[in-house]
Amino acid sequence: MNKDFVLSIDVGGTNTAFGLVDKTGYCIAKDSLRTNSGKTAEELFTHLFMQFSNTLKEFKKDHHLVGVGIGAPNANYYTGEVKAPPNLTWHDVNLVQLLSQFVDVPVVITNDANAAALGEMHFGAAKNMKHFIEITLGTGLGSGIVVDGKVVYGQDGFAGELGHVTAIFDGRICGCGRKGCLEAYASATGIVKTAVEMMDTINGDSELLHIDKEKLESRDVFVAAQNGDQLALEIFEKTGEILGRTLANSVVHTSPEAFIFFGGMAQAGDLILDPVRRHLEKNVMKVFKGKTKVLPSGLPGTDAAILGAAALIWNELDS
Amino acid sequence: MNKDFVLSIDVGGTNTAFGLVDKTGYCIAKDSLRTNSGKTAEELFTHLFMQFSNTLKEFKKDHHLVGVGIGAPNANYYTGEVKAPPNLTWHDVNLVQLLSQFVDVPVVITNDANAAALGEMHFGAAKNMKHFIEITLGTGLGSGIVVDGKVVYGQDGFAGELGHVTAIFDGRICGCGRKGCLEAYASATGIVKTAVEMMDTINGDSELLHIDKEKLESRDVFVAAQNGDQLALEIFEKTGEILGRTLANSVVHTSPEAFIFFGGMAQAGDLILDPVRRHLEKNVMKVFKGKTKVLPSGLPGTDAAILGAAALIWNELDS
Repeated sequence: MNKDFVLSIDVGGTNTAFGLVDKTGYCIAKDSLRTNSGKTAEELFTHLFMQFSNTLKEFKKDHHLVGVGIGAPNANYYTGEVKAPPNLTWHDVNLVQLLSQFVDVPVVITNDANAAALGEMHFGAAKNMKHFIEITLGTGLGSGIVVDGKVVYGQDGFAGELGHVTAIFDGRICGCGRKGCLEAYASATGIVKTAVEMMDTINGDSELLHIDKEKLESRDVFVAAQNGDQLALEIFEKTGEILGRTLANSVVHTSPEAFIFFGGMAQAGDLILDPVRRHLEKNVMKVFKGKTKVLPSGLPGTDAAILGAAALIWNELDS
Repeated sequence: MNKDFVLSIDVGGTNTAFGLVDKTGYCIAKDSLRTNSGKTAEELFTHLFMQFSNTLKEFKKDHHLVGVGIGAPNANYYTGEVKAPPNLTWHDVNLVQLLSQFVDVPVVITNDANAAALGEMHFGAAKNMKHFIEITLGTGLGSGIVVDGKVVYGQDGFAGELGHVTAIFDGRICGCGRKGCLEAYASATGIVKTAVEMMDTINGDSELLHIDKEKLESRDVFVAAQNGDQLALEIFEKTGEILGRTLANSVVHTSPEAFIFFGGMAQAGDLILDPVRRHLEKNVMKVFKGKTKVLPSGLPGTDAAILGAAALIWNELDS
């Protein structure tokens, strides 16, 4: 029996989840706290280690803590820094340095999409793949590109920002300041914008028309589509079309075996994945036709984020 | 003194160049023959080894042939095959198998753009780079993507086809059957099409207007631009704009240190590279601004193709 385990931490906009995970992806113990329970990163991690101290102490009796993996927004694998994290009250901080106050084992960080990609490769839908692209569909669109079994970090650690390829020339203003970014269409925020636009031009009825536009959420579009609402289905079709034809441009970059969809909005399943499949296939260069799968994440919903950060550190310890 | 050398072969649409190259990139001997001097690949290589047999024999007296590297259109690194090569009279052929009739050392093949990327990394402008993208601008647009010091081949060996990302939605028909591909604008063929379009709408004079449209070549646009012809300069500006803003989408994939431009049309130098620089910088996501260089190839013109295929096999022998 292997007695090594890692501490895995996923810093989300709302909750920070953490757990003890062995090499097979078995989560021995887990817990979470509100990310804003600490105004600074130092406060948050102080709270986390206080809250988890008894569990850690107990497990250390007959197990070995061998490393810590952290997934966090805007986290840089090379430098250990988190810079200007959106939706957090933190300033810039070097998490690897900070964690050395709490543990004396290797600490590795990366952004949530890269962590998800590694989780997928070790424990999920990409177990036998060397080349794939993880797409995280939530409030925004993140991505982790895997080439030859390794996450692509590029010259500065920021590679794999497919939310910010141009999907529509001169299109919607994106949060990043550019125009027409993929994220401005294919994300929870983007699908709501598309819904509002299409509600203005619809002939006939839709259950979405009975919801206040200001309060419309991506979940409403999902529920309506599940009910067979024609407008909602067309909104998913439109979103999948933009996503599929834009990802056709990513195929010619790294020729991945699959796009794997993770995150809140990916839980719409085939409602979004089917149009992505069709429009990817229709638009991709001939030599790649029929080669690239479009798959849902294979990570179990409840432990998914923890498994990503766990894979990150296990991967590092193995290499 | 190192007495090892490789045989390097570049199969071009018109000429096939070959040479003996040592590990430092020094070309001991070289020669070439017309690619169509053999109707099949077997005939071509029979002629090549006959033509080169005396030189090879002479060098083998006090040198060791340790490998063969071949750059060829549509060549697949994984399988050793060349499939449906454009502009050649060949059928599908496995070059690695074929070459075993002539030599008893390792043989590696890849396409010309990947070979150029490897040449750049070993002997040219990318000597100290781990992450860059080689763009070959000739009749078409090819590319070789390097991540962590390795060429990206993807699941099937066909990764790095940036000539076939969508540059203009619903744009020009491309040779590949898709619409609006980058290659349909940024290539010798593409720039001529742009010239013809712009000649139709120009106010004022241009030396290009005195050339028969049917006979116009990219070289004419280059010469006119060098003479300061306003229309020709605008054609380069337009081409560089499309190229620069489209490559901004490649930056978010692999975050390269540089795009390095190789091939006939790249010899226009800053006439094409300056607008590429400006429009890349203008369109790239904020976190990447000021980080990605746009450089001309550092490979010496006369030996460039040979050095690419030489780097391919040296790289393989070293790994």
